[in-house]
Amino acid sequence: MANQKISTAVIRRLPRYYRYLHTLIDEGVERISSAELSRRMHVTASQIRQDLNHFGGFGQQGYGYNVRYLRQEIGKVLGVDHEHSMAVIGVGNLGKALVRSQDFRKKGFFVTALFDSDPAVIGRKFCGCTVQDTSNLINYLKEYPVDIGVLTVPRKNAEKLAAQLVEAGVKTIWNFAHCELELPADVVVENVYLVDSLMRLSYKDSHRTK
Amino acid sequence: MANQKISTAVIRRLPRYYRYLHTLIDEGVERISSAELSRRMHVTASQIRQDLNHFGGFGQQGYGYNVRYLRQEIGKVLGVDHEHSMAVIGVGNLGKALVRSQDFRKKGFFVTALFDSDPAVIGRKFCGCTVQDTSNLINYLKEYPVDIGVLTVPRKNAEKLAAQLVEAGVKTIWNFAHCELELPADVVVENVYLVDSLMRLSYKDSHRTK
Repeated sequence: MANQKISTAVIRRLPRYYRYLHTLIDEGVERISSAELSRRMHVTASQIRQDLNHFGGFGQQGYGYNVRYLRQEIGKVLGVDHEHSMAVIGVGNLGKALVRSQDFRKKGFFVTALFDSDPAVIGRKFCGCTVQDTSNLINYLKEYPVDIGVLTVPRKNAEKLAAQLVEAGVKTIWNFAHCELELPADVVVENVYLVDSLMRLSYKDSHRTK
Repeated sequence: MANQKISTAVIRRLPRYYRYLHTLIDEGVERISSAELSRRMHVTASQIRQDLNHFGGFGQQGYGYNVRYLRQEIGKVLGVDHEHSMAVIGVGNLGKALVRSQDFRKKGFFVTALFDSDPAVIGRKFCGCTVQDTSNLINYLKEYPVDIGVLTVPRKNAEKLAAQLVEAGVKTIWNFAHCELELPADVVVENVYLVDSLMRLSYKDSHRTK
């Protein structure tokens, strides 16, 4: 079931379901109807049924969804049923914040390598990882591969370092640099543009309905 | 022109246009056709024309778009033609990263107040701002208002602190806490759920086309 084709829109919504189901488990809720989930999530019950039907068979008429089972199945689809290793490139403030955050570790994402080009940072240790010179990036990651490369570097260095990650065999990139990377077709990227987010907030601020 | 009703989808795309137009200005490009912009941005030329028509009058047949003017007009719509003050609630790693980032200052977003509940952090100074006890939040922000409240606190404290921001008169919240805030209808929020982003990446990783 989890292998059938699921639309991008549904995929975008899955982490939100995953998050809500986690809250329900915390609250001790074992099963929930689409109507109740709809009320909580401010999404129509029919949308929820449509979305969750992709995972088939565990929303039963008159019973509702088994919360743990549903979360586990969505977790499998999202690939968070197994661990992931990450290399963080750029150990500035944001890089440090990501390394130190427990939110990612709780979901099975572990930082196993750190790189920076600043001599003041190289050799320092964060959460058990020693920062290495970015000039070692390719050699190191070829020998000790990671699943995900995290780019928290200035825009001007991002393209070059992304290319080095790809050369080292990393095909999955979480990009925080404020630019769009040109990458081979088999590399997947998720961009986090914080400035864009702030500008959208600024738009909402200046065009609020009341 | 900028006051007409613009769809949410267009608004979501505006920061990306704004970013590209900035790059074009850096490159010394003064005007650009929708065809050329299309090629660069991997968006159809007709989509670009439709999107930018909302700002009317400065995409001319056979001339293209005046890059500076277009960026300025989009900037006005996004509300980045004037400065914004921000209070950061939660001066942990992520909070520090946001305070220290120059990306936001360059766009006119300035942190003018910092709050934390950790005695080890209260009284410390970051970028000219002294961290205050969150117990002073309401009183301080009533006296020295800010445009935007930035929540970089653990999920369990987010709801309470959001309510305090609202009580202090802050009606615009940039939320990094991993939860959805229940807020009055006149408060606008932009959520940044980094874990959701990482899970979407993990999905792409485990379902790549090649």
